[in-house]
Amino acid sequence: MSLIVQKYGGTSVANTDRIKSVAERVARWRAHGHRIVVVVSAMSGVTDGLIKLAREVMPRPTERELDVLLATGEQTTVALAAMALHALGVEAVSLTGAQAGIVTDGVHTKARILNITPREVHALLESGNVVIVAGFQGQTPSGRITTLGRGGSDLTAVALAGALRADLCQIFTDVDGVYTADPRIVPAARKLEEISYDEMLELASLGAKVMQSRSVEIAKKFGVPFEVRSSFSEEPGTMVKEETESMEEVVIRGVSLDRNQAKLTLVGVPDQPGIAAAVFKPLTESAVNVDMIVQNVSHGGGEPATDLSFTVEKADLAKATAAIESAKDRLRYREILTDESVAKLSVVGVGMRSHPGVASTMFDALANANVNIQMISTSEIKISVVIDLESGERATQAVHAAFLE
Amino acid sequence: MSLIVQKYGGTSVANTDRIKSVAERVARWRAHGHRIVVVVSAMSGVTDGLIKLAREVMPRPTERELDVLLATGEQTTVALAAMALHALGVEAVSLTGAQAGIVTDGVHTKARILNITPREVHALLESGNVVIVAGFQGQTPSGRITTLGRGGSDLTAVALAGALRADLCQIFTDVDGVYTADPRIVPAARKLEEISYDEMLELASLGAKVMQSRSVEIAKKFGVPFEVRSSFSEEPGTMVKEETESMEEVVIRGVSLDRNQAKLTLVGVPDQPGIAAAVFKPLTESAVNVDMIVQNVSHGGGEPATDLSFTVEKADLAKATAAIESAKDRLRYREILTDESVAKLSVVGVGMRSHPGVASTMFDALANANVNIQMISTSEIKISVVIDLESGERATQAVHAAFLE
Repeated sequence: MSLIVQKYGGTSVANTDRIKSVAERVARWRAHGHRIVVVVSAMSGVTDGLIKLAREVMPRPTERELDVLLATGEQTTVALAAMALHALGVEAVSLTGAQAGIVTDGVHTKARILNITPREVHALLESGNVVIVAGFQGQTPSGRITTLGRGGSDLTAVALAGALRADLCQIFTDVDGVYTADPRIVPAARKLEEISYDEMLELASLGAKVMQSRSVEIAKKFGVPFEVRSSFSEEPGTMVKEETESMEEVVIRGVSLDRNQAKLTLVGVPDQPGIAAAVFKPLTESAVNVDMIVQNVSHGGGEPATDLSFTVEKADLAKATAAIESAKDRLRYREILTDESVAKLSVVGVGMRSHPGVASTMFDALANANVNIQMISTSEIKISVVIDLESGERATQAVHAAFLE
Repeated sequence: MSLIVQKYGGTSVANTDRIKSVAERVARWRAHGHRIVVVVSAMSGVTDGLIKLAREVMPRPTERELDVLLATGEQTTVALAAMALHALGVEAVSLTGAQAGIVTDGVHTKARILNITPREVHALLESGNVVIVAGFQGQTPSGRITTLGRGGSDLTAVALAGALRADLCQIFTDVDGVYTADPRIVPAARKLEEISYDEMLELASLGAKVMQSRSVEIAKKFGVPFEVRSSFSEEPGTMVKEETESMEEVVIRGVSLDRNQAKLTLVGVPDQPGIAAAVFKPLTESAVNVDMIVQNVSHGGGEPATDLSFTVEKADLAKATAAIESAKDRLRYREILTDESVAKLSVVGVGMRSHPGVASTMFDALANANVNIQMISTSEIKISVVIDLESGERATQAVHAAFLE
């Protein structure tokens, strides 16, 4: 008899019919003899509706009270989900995040979990209940309601699975697993049976919108295996876990295209120690997240100078440009170029580090598809290139074909 | 500097504009130097919407989970009300019933308050906050969310005022006070400046829909004076408090008409000890609340028999009739008569017990208005008569004129 934590997101509990379907699914797992903890999000649209109400009262709502307000969304779902199980004759009890023992810091609207004391969850499981926990929320040690920010319900599920030493955590969502590429771009894309935490992290940060990095990091830290699967089918999904020997044989796990990038190039930056630090300090102060950074070698002749390119999210381009321009006196670059028509194409795979030739296979595939490479960046388990936005889909298909078909 | 507990009901917080008006009102009282605790209900319509959702999932929702669901209604309002005060630059913090220290028994959907430990409320008041507490809800000693049932937010306000030893409790509602009669029926009706707890209790139980008896009982028990007043004007309302000497001089405080009554008469019941108990046992078992009971003297001749009449709420008439019929063998009545076309007219006043002649004045007024009296029942501070429904308004006007104009 396993202990399983199942998480259902907003679209899986979008209305009372969907909540009843979730209850039926939970009841089937329960009938197999498993002990089950269910983590649910707010019904889709509910959180946005609450934020709209708050803004009617106060254009920039105080975050402490916004948390009190938003926490009602998941509380509504847990009560309805428990009723739906009762209607099927299954014993179930709902808990708010606070009642489930989820203790966070006091950074309202994006609190971090400090610890979990799942005494009540254990007690209710012991007495034969399915326990339904409100995702996305917790309380401070002094008892104030907090929420965990984006991806918060996944985080609740994974962290609770860790604290309960659950055998498995299942993330039910509106996709049926992790794919070798976005099937809308690459029709030949396949669903992966398994993937390592690190690969999942790279994919998460590369725009595969399945899960926030934060939850994957926690799963990795506490060794919680989890499965990403569809709440609309019975098919198994993708297992995310520590890499195993058999996983190492795979060279490339997936191909990912991120079209939400913009590129900045500082032309003619003095080639001196400390200049990179000087460039990125104003960006950090403006809370701009920099992704890829590439510095080319020095040009010959005169005072040594170099070009420095980096990418940011498209939404941050204006802020990044302003930050760099405000520091122009110190940075002494000749010119700043920006380009919003770029995309980042990445191949990810744990096996890569012990398999030479991955880079050249990728570059060959892009050359054959007539795609120009603007920037290159590599890590232990991924190679990313910045290319023209217009060639993004063609490039993704070519690289997927080269490695995975 | 007084400590004031203010309660705002569902229509007073019906939407975000109304919530902003409430915040402005609270801010004005605060500016006078008072310390303020605000108790709010769910926005009108929200509770019904939640019940509808619950019924979609489960036709008869489990009460424990219904409480978890319904409690989100008031939690939403407290967060929005706190934000509305912040928008006015007033320090404010919201608390759920549980956070405010309201501990109840475990009778879900109609829990009773066991005790209140307002430590957090005191601490927040001390540090200069307006404290906004979710009405209608609490938690069991073991931490389960409960709700208090009908009139629950009034109860929260009055009980909290008692526990905090507040100087005053104000019930802001959609009427501007307690009247000598319903102004829609009696145009000459006047607003009362003050009324005693007992008189308010009689009026509450007589269909004056201002407040549930339960809250008035608690106010009386803990000696909490409270004011019923409008949230849509600045006029003072009606003070409800211990009777004072000056109050005793008043003979009649008000006239009340309850059109929600039905009458049952058991004809030819054997006139024996224990028969009344036998009649009312099946009613109690069916959870029918019996209001007036009148037993006439025995008819002469043959086996002594009597007629027994009583009134119930119209909605309970079918249930009451079925309960009596199912016990026919034991009760041995000859016939059962029911009448839905009745109304109960009452005059209420603390002074009544020491002023003879009130009954005859009332009966004279009714006779002059050509109203037939079907049943009479009296208590220390009220006289009630059951009359034909059709003559209800005429009778109310006549009695009001006799005593109060």
